[in-house]
Amino acid sequence: MIPKIIAFDADDTLWHNEPYFDEAQAKFCELFADYASKQEILQLILSHQVKNLPLYGFGIKAFTLSMIDSALELTSDQISGQGIKKIIDIGRDLLQKPVELLPEVEEVLKQLKGKYKLVVATKGDLKDQHRKLHDSGIGHYFHHIEVMSDKKELDYEKMLSRLDIKPEDFIMIGNSLKSDVLPVLNIGGHGYHIPYHTTWEYEKIDFEIQHDNFKSLEKITDVLPILLQ
Amino acid sequence: MIPKIIAFDADDTLWHNEPYFDEAQAKFCELFADYASKQEILQLILSHQVKNLPLYGFGIKAFTLSMIDSALELTSDQISGQGIKKIIDIGRDLLQKPVELLPEVEEVLKQLKGKYKLVVATKGDLKDQHRKLHDSGIGHYFHHIEVMSDKKELDYEKMLSRLDIKPEDFIMIGNSLKSDVLPVLNIGGHGYHIPYHTTWEYEKIDFEIQHDNFKSLEKITDVLPILLQ
Repeated sequence: MIPKIIAFDADDTLWHNEPYFDEAQAKFCELFADYASKQEILQLILSHQVKNLPLYGFGIKAFTLSMIDSALELTSDQISGQGIKKIIDIGRDLLQKPVELLPEVEEVLKQLKGKYKLVVATKGDLKDQHRKLHDSGIGHYFHHIEVMSDKKELDYEKMLSRLDIKPEDFIMIGNSLKSDVLPVLNIGGHGYHIPYHTTWEYEKIDFEIQHDNFKSLEKITDVLPILLQ
Repeated sequence: MIPKIIAFDADDTLWHNEPYFDEAQAKFCELFADYASKQEILQLILSHQVKNLPLYGFGIKAFTLSMIDSALELTSDQISGQGIKKIIDIGRDLLQKPVELLPEVEEVLKQLKGKYKLVVATKGDLKDQHRKLHDSGIGHYFHHIEVMSDKKELDYEKMLSRLDIKPEDFIMIGNSLKSDVLPVLNIGGHGYHIPYHTTWEYEKIDFEIQHDNFKSLEKITDVLPILLQ
């Protein structure tokens, strides 16, 4: 059966993202190099991000607030107003990064367009993801963008019911096994993994996936022989 | 022609919201009472919110970051880490407020359910609006929730194209003439206004609307004689 909707993850699947976050975190680590090692600071930011997830969700505003929490902890609340400003600027800078498409993305979309309903399915800040899709110049290949508050089974189920489509007619393509593949397989959909060279610590899993609906690919063009057959 | 989709704004249409923001802002004003009058501080927060809109969008995380910007300006960057923490707590507190339905909301939804496709169409933080719809206990009346990054003409057009519906088959019901009514009328849809006792400064307009597709109502039950005829 031919799936009716193909959803692409956005960050690190359609365009580069994680390197910008890495760069932002490196700047933060430099600011507080007197207080802790880079490794310790990265661990601290991650712990605040995970703690804040239930209230803040994903995205750059949440990341900015988690950096502020981390700075307060690192300095025992002795951070200056100037320091806070620098952190806010790291966040604002991230929100204005250029959108750089990954290789061959547009070529693949061009070939799939018209044959499937294509959507973008991503986490993060609503405004920021809309901005990035707009700036990417590839918005016209997609029927629409779904910004999800999380990518767990329930979130995908809600999305599929909103789109009035059965899980078996749905393929999710993305770089995160944890967010783009596993939950989709678990609800009966298809998950294709295309690795990106760096993965956010939070998205890592430490086991192998074996499933009839799972495809482990190397690059985005690998979807074409499967989807155009 | 009977419209096929009825969209309800959420904050101050389905449940109370603005009073929580007013309370949060009052707390902020108290923290900085030594620096400026309440009126001046409220004006300052609003100016930072409007300045930040293009990058941050709407919602409580954006509001928190705008409060921090305001505090930095008020104190000429001399704010303490403790002060920053208090501001972050004001934001976190807002994200955990109970959801209090407005009178008769559930009664109205009960009567419309099955006769129309009902959706929630709201701005704000993705995660927070999903949380509120869940906590409200009225989620099952709706086909789904649309969290919009803004409520301008283009945002509504995108939503209608995603829902595969024509503007003339769409009614938007809400408390903001600026966000819920005007843009919808402008793209050919129907807009019903139900005022709330207090309106965010940003949402105010200073002219009267006259339009065939516009209805100015007093309370949510006023939609029933129109929609159930």
